[in-house]
Amino acid sequence: MLKLFEYNWQVRQDWFAWCQDVSEEELLKKRTGGIGGILHTLFHIADVEFSWISGLQGRPEFTEPFEHYASLQKVTDLSARFHEEVRPFVMSWTNEMELKELLELSPQGETVNFKYGEIMRHVIAHEIHHIGQLSVWSREIGKDPVTANLIRRGLF
Amino acid sequence: MLKLFEYNWQVRQDWFAWCQDVSEEELLKKRTGGIGGILHTLFHIADVEFSWISGLQGRPEFTEPFEHYASLQKVTDLSARFHEEVRPFVMSWTNEMELKELLELSPQGETVNFKYGEIMRHVIAHEIHHIGQLSVWSREIGKDPVTANLIRRGLF
Repeated sequence: MLKLFEYNWQVRQDWFAWCQDVSEEELLKKRTGGIGGILHTLFHIADVEFSWISGLQGRPEFTEPFEHYASLQKVTDLSARFHEEVRPFVMSWTNEMELKELLELSPQGETVNFKYGEIMRHVIAHEIHHIGQLSVWSREIGKDPVTANLIRRGLF
Repeated sequence: MLKLFEYNWQVRQDWFAWCQDVSEEELLKKRTGGIGGILHTLFHIADVEFSWISGLQGRPEFTEPFEHYASLQKVTDLSARFHEEVRPFVMSWTNEMELKELLELSPQGETVNFKYGEIMRHVIAHEIHHIGQLSVWSREIGKDPVTANLIRRGLF
């Protein structure tokens, strides 16, 4: 489990570095698919990881809109701040937590039941999926994307 | 580990079903980013999963080009055939296999050393990343993409 989080964190940092050479106009431009923009996607990834893992810890989720963070520095800082809170939980993950239950209220007021292991994998897949979208938009701009390879990253 | 493979297999089937309502022209059209087309991406995902897992089993990888399989039926059939060979290996995965070593020869003739657990996670991330690209192209065509959510799929 941990290795896939470490992969995501490394790839996310690579994308923040990639953004340094791209104009803020391109980073904020409305695009087709996904959440609709490069910086907004990085904000969304950090938000979703933090909010779900806060939920697993019985803490409130993040609810601020992207508009409050619409610059590269602000999203980078937010992601770093969230990372400090997310990392200890992920690092202390044990197999016994897999089937622990998280109860959520649906918008219709029904109780929905998730397993902790299900949420962790959902968070992993969520980030990788959205990073795939960035790779298409990066080619549209004419730039090479960050490699998505998990091998050759020194993770093992 | 298994749950993320099951997620990928389910999502891949959803995309094959999604393809049924799209013209072969759109499925084969050259696009920006990734491997450059919808059907080619699904072929590539099946190929890469099969080839790496064949490698872990000491079997030869798949080497045929996409041009031999450039129709929805052929890629669907190839993916199903590969799945029959991949599934038993994934289902029989144990923690003891994590750090087993796979030796590969690089194009430069150097020996490269991978861990089995590293390759398995590489294969998982590879598919999710490319599916993210399909989700952008699907919006370009004007169609809703398959959901990338791992929750609410009955996996847990």
